[in-house]
Amino acid sequence: MITPSDFSEQYESLINRPVLAKAADFQRQERLTHVIFAQQFDRDMLNHLCSTASMIRQISRHRQGQDFLTGLLSHKRAMLYFTQASTRTFLSFMAACQILGMTCNEIRDPTTSSEFKGESPLDSMRMFSSYFDVVIMRSNMAKFAESCAYLMNELASQGRRSVPVVNAGSGADEHPTQALLDIYTIQRTFEFSSQKDNARQSRFDTLRRRYPELNKGLENKTYGFCGDVGRGRTVRSLTTLLALWPGVRFNFIYPNYDKLAPYADMLTRLEEAGVGIEHSHSLPDVINRLDMLYMTRIQHEHDTDADRRFFETFDAAQFTLYPELLSKMREYCPILHPFPRNQEIPFEIDSDPRAMYFRQARNGMWIRAALLAHLFDVDGKIGAFHQKNYGA
Amino acid sequence: MITPSDFSEQYESLINRPVLAKAADFQRQERLTHVIFAQQFDRDMLNHLCSTASMIRQISRHRQGQDFLTGLLSHKRAMLYFTQASTRTFLSFMAACQILGMTCNEIRDPTTSSEFKGESPLDSMRMFSSYFDVVIMRSNMAKFAESCAYLMNELASQGRRSVPVVNAGSGADEHPTQALLDIYTIQRTFEFSSQKDNARQSRFDTLRRRYPELNKGLENKTYGFCGDVGRGRTVRSLTTLLALWPGVRFNFIYPNYDKLAPYADMLTRLEEAGVGIEHSHSLPDVINRLDMLYMTRIQHEHDTDADRRFFETFDAAQFTLYPELLSKMREYCPILHPFPRNQEIPFEIDSDPRAMYFRQARNGMWIRAALLAHLFDVDGKIGAFHQKNYGA
Amino acid sequence: MITPSDFSEQYESLINRPVLAKAADFQRQERLTHVIFAQQFDRDMLNHLCSTASMIRQISRHRQGQDFLTGLLSHKRAMLYFTQASTRTFLSFMAACQILGMTCNEIRDPTTSSEFKGESPLDSMRMFSSYFDVVIMRSNMAKFAESCAYLMNELASQGRRSVPVVNAGSGADEHPTQALLDIYTIQRTFEFSSQKDNARQSRFDTLRRRYPELNKGLENKTYGFCGDVGRGRTVRSLTTLLALWPGVRFNFIYPNYDKLAPYADMLTRLEEAGVGIEHSHSLPDVINRLDMLYMTRIQHEHDTDADRRFFETFDAAQFTLYPELLSKMREYCPILHPFPRNQEIPFEIDSDPRAMYFRQARNGMWIRAALLAHLFDVDGKIGAFHQKNYGA
Repeated sequence: MITPSDFSEQYESLINRPVLAKAADFQRQERLTHVIFAQQFDRDMLNHLCSTASMIRQISRHRQGQDFLTGLLSHKRAMLYFTQASTRTFLSFMAACQILGMTCNEIRDPTTSSEFKGESPLDSMRMFSSYFDVVIMRSNMAKFAESCAYLMNELASQGRRSVPVVNAGSGADEHPTQALLDIYTIQRTFEFSSQKDNARQSRFDTLRRRYPELNKGLENKTYGFCGDVGRGRTVRSLTTLLALWPGVRFNFIYPNYDKLAPYADMLTRLEEAGVGIEHSHSLPDVINRLDMLYMTRIQHEHDTDADRRFFETFDAAQFTLYPELLSKMREYCPILHPFPRNQEIPFEIDSDPRAMYFRQARNGMWIRAALLAHLFDVDGKIGAFHQKNYGA
Repeated sequence: MITPSDFSEQYESLINRPVLAKAADFQRQERLTHVIFAQQFDRDMLNHLCSTASMIRQISRHRQGQDFLTGLLSHKRAMLYFTQASTRTFLSFMAACQILGMTCNEIRDPTTSSEFKGESPLDSMRMFSSYFDVVIMRSNMAKFAESCAYLMNELASQGRRSVPVVNAGSGADEHPTQALLDIYTIQRTFEFSSQKDNARQSRFDTLRRRYPELNKGLENKTYGFCGDVGRGRTVRSLTTLLALWPGVRFNFIYPNYDKLAPYADMLTRLEEAGVGIEHSHSLPDVINRLDMLYMTRIQHEHDTDADRRFFETFDAAQFTLYPELLSKMREYCPILHPFPRNQEIPFEIDSDPRAMYFRQARNGMWIRAALLAHLFDVDGKIGAFHQKNYGA
Repeated sequence: MITPSDFSEQYESLINRPVLAKAADFQRQERLTHVIFAQQFDRDMLNHLCSTASMIRQISRHRQGQDFLTGLLSHKRAMLYFTQASTRTFLSFMAACQILGMTCNEIRDPTTSSEFKGESPLDSMRMFSSYFDVVIMRSNMAKFAESCAYLMNELASQGRRSVPVVNAGSGADEHPTQALLDIYTIQRTFEFSSQKDNARQSRFDTLRRRYPELNKGLENKTYGFCGDVGRGRTVRSLTTLLALWPGVRFNFIYPNYDKLAPYADMLTRLEEAGVGIEHSHSLPDVINRLDMLYMTRIQHEHDTDADRRFFETFDAAQFTLYPELLSKMREYCPILHPFPRNQEIPFEIDSDPRAMYFRQARNGMWIRAALLAHLFDVDGKIGAFHQKNYGA
């Protein structure tokens, strides 16, 4: 039997270093060479990726632009190696690759690869790197993507073939591109732009009359996170990135039960970053103060018997976005959700203009395309094409 | 647990209207916006699709034409969402998409999507519509494709992203593109054209000497349907479409057992459409009178114990196309079968020039490509290219 | 239940002829029409395919060349029909198809095709040939690929649609493209070229000072095969091809146990071809005399209880390439392995420049692309493009 230690021990001393020390291993000058954890992104990088994503989105509206985009990486072949099922993330990456013209290959049925039993996962990884130009991987083995990136680095140092590794979710620890799409969705919302904007009047001006302290951009905002704050990987990654902006406040709204509360290490880290933090156990109590609301599902699949006893008496209504709450929310406050949802967001909310959770999916596609463009160093070409055809 | 009612109740009042009232919801002017049931096709539409299919077929014979075709929709991405296995239909749609240059994505292993358990199927559908430009779906849930089409219509009415839905078979109720390929196969056969035709002499002239009343086209023909007429979805759909032509007669040839007989509602509908109907319990008795023979397999997978007792004494020979029957058949009478086959058509028949059942597969590919071209409004370009390069 | 005899009996008399008699059925003049067994390749063909593979490799280094290559077969659609799992071979063929621009379709989950139960496998094959332009197939049914090739030949003789069949491994009997990639890897190694070669000094000159009898090319070499010589299909196919070169000697190194020893029929065949044969039961004893070392894994999945008793007392060390053996090996001796590996090659060997087993994967991709180019008659275009852009 192969255990994670079989592949991680080769790179154990590298993996056990602090995150920011490792980040340097996965970039060359200002360009990422592998995407393994959210901490690799700083504010400049996030702004650059968001900007590239928006250019790709705009360019892809016309046929000539689509043809330009699909020509960028039509000579590249991607492997999507998903041994842990995640259809949303899988399809989003597929679409992102296809926007740039990459040919996609996939392993997503874990039984297909049962033949690999007894083989080192790093041998499989090296096979993929023989055939393909990037490996996008999702695994339930913590540190596997990171080990693969270190294997690629070792091969590169020997002058052998090496390809970028993109972590599409590894075990409970990291899912960097989910945080990326959340940031992109928030960033777009907080541009406060509208198709009806003109020189005399803009949506932002109108909002400012009602909310005089409102500013554009991610800074100086109160971000609400509601639901299973403790066990959700997405909240962890997203708060890490949002904390890069100044004047950020987090409002964690969760049942009064240890496992669902934000973990101490995360709180310490955020406080050190200067983030203001509030705790609450009722969404209705605080919803009017939020600039953004990030809803999450209670992850019952991890429940123990004790947890299940707790949930028998638990008041789900305090963590559900009922339609009657909409009128209490700020007019511009985006509603996000990493999906899938259960009952915490009823269908009636879907048609509210603040509901962003379906747009998140499409934003994920654009920002992943931007990330791939960055990895393959064609983001400059995208910028140039955009400049030429759309100015600005 | 999600049940069909969970997604269909939202659109229940829409779904429960008469078929022709609903057809108007799935087209805009003369163009289809979704393909849900066979009754959406009228004779003009069928003629137009058959004609487009034949142009695609001809254009694709040369490299320059293939390049023209694959350029038509190279900026579009298709999702083939097949939660009910059907490899034939799946591959046929894949090939059709590829002929027009579309990039294909697929979900065809139902276990891949088990992660969706507890999620509304309409949330999944909306995710697909975020990433892809058309959703071709097959499901064992009746009315699911139709509900998805209504969801898309609702989004379109809100100015949100909406994509075409194509029903590739939903439960026992509808499989519109199978009927389409059957019609196309028959239409091509009844052109009675031959590569040896010349100004002096044609295959049709020769046939007319032997069958003086023969005419070109689908009208004034006797169509035989042999086998499991009651439980076969394909017979239902095809007879609906054939009844659009004048002078059509149907000969239903089936074991004398209720479940295998044509259903009363279908017979009523056909009679109202003015179709002449005959019933028979022996293929050899009537084979000489048929202009077309549509063979079907007995669908034993639906048998109850009572059915199995019936089949113990049943004379399969009366519903089998033995080679000795070939000489009794009309010289031009095409043999169709929706496949897979069991023993009702022995291998020896395969080399007979009237055997069309393998050509049906290839015809299905062409007519599905024509349908996609129509949905994406590039059938006009195909017509223009054909006119320019092949005249007429 | 379908058994192999159901499909093979139709072509039984054809299949039961000698291999070289059958080879003529699968080519037209000098060009292969189907690829079914290794004996179809003669030395000229092997040299031609290796040369085409190397040209494809070189052309694909630049974007303009990649675009040339992907334009060659962009109008063709491949079906990869893998009912027996083999991810390596599958991905290698996918990549090969994609290099030439072919659109790929796949069936690789055997459960997807369970719906075909009761249907003749030849009906499935004929469906594939309706939609696609080549069928690359792997099956655990011996003779299935061969039967499919004969079906295609029969259709061609009737003027019906027929497509090439490529055997990607059928049961225990044949895996011709694995032998092809082994040959290509050896051929490249025995060019003894180096990037540092110049007019005054070459790697070959240096090697000749130490090994005065060394010559370029596959002839006059001692090839070692170590491990499960008896049960490994790859050794069988590769020795068949190597025996086409003059002055070839084989050293079989295997545990002293009947099942693992080379089979009598193979030895007879090789001796008749004039090959010198040695037997050994210890890799360390002979490693210094080898020009190439082909390592294989003991295929324990085929072990009986008696076999397992043997392996309890078996000295695996005699068939393991420990790092301390590296210094005894000839400086140029390539190490090959068909993969997956177990412990017979420790990870420490991977960084030795003689380790070719990861390059084999990439070579497999190039040589399969060359084979497809040959089947579709575009190898001439590749040669012309190479001549024009690289001379020689």
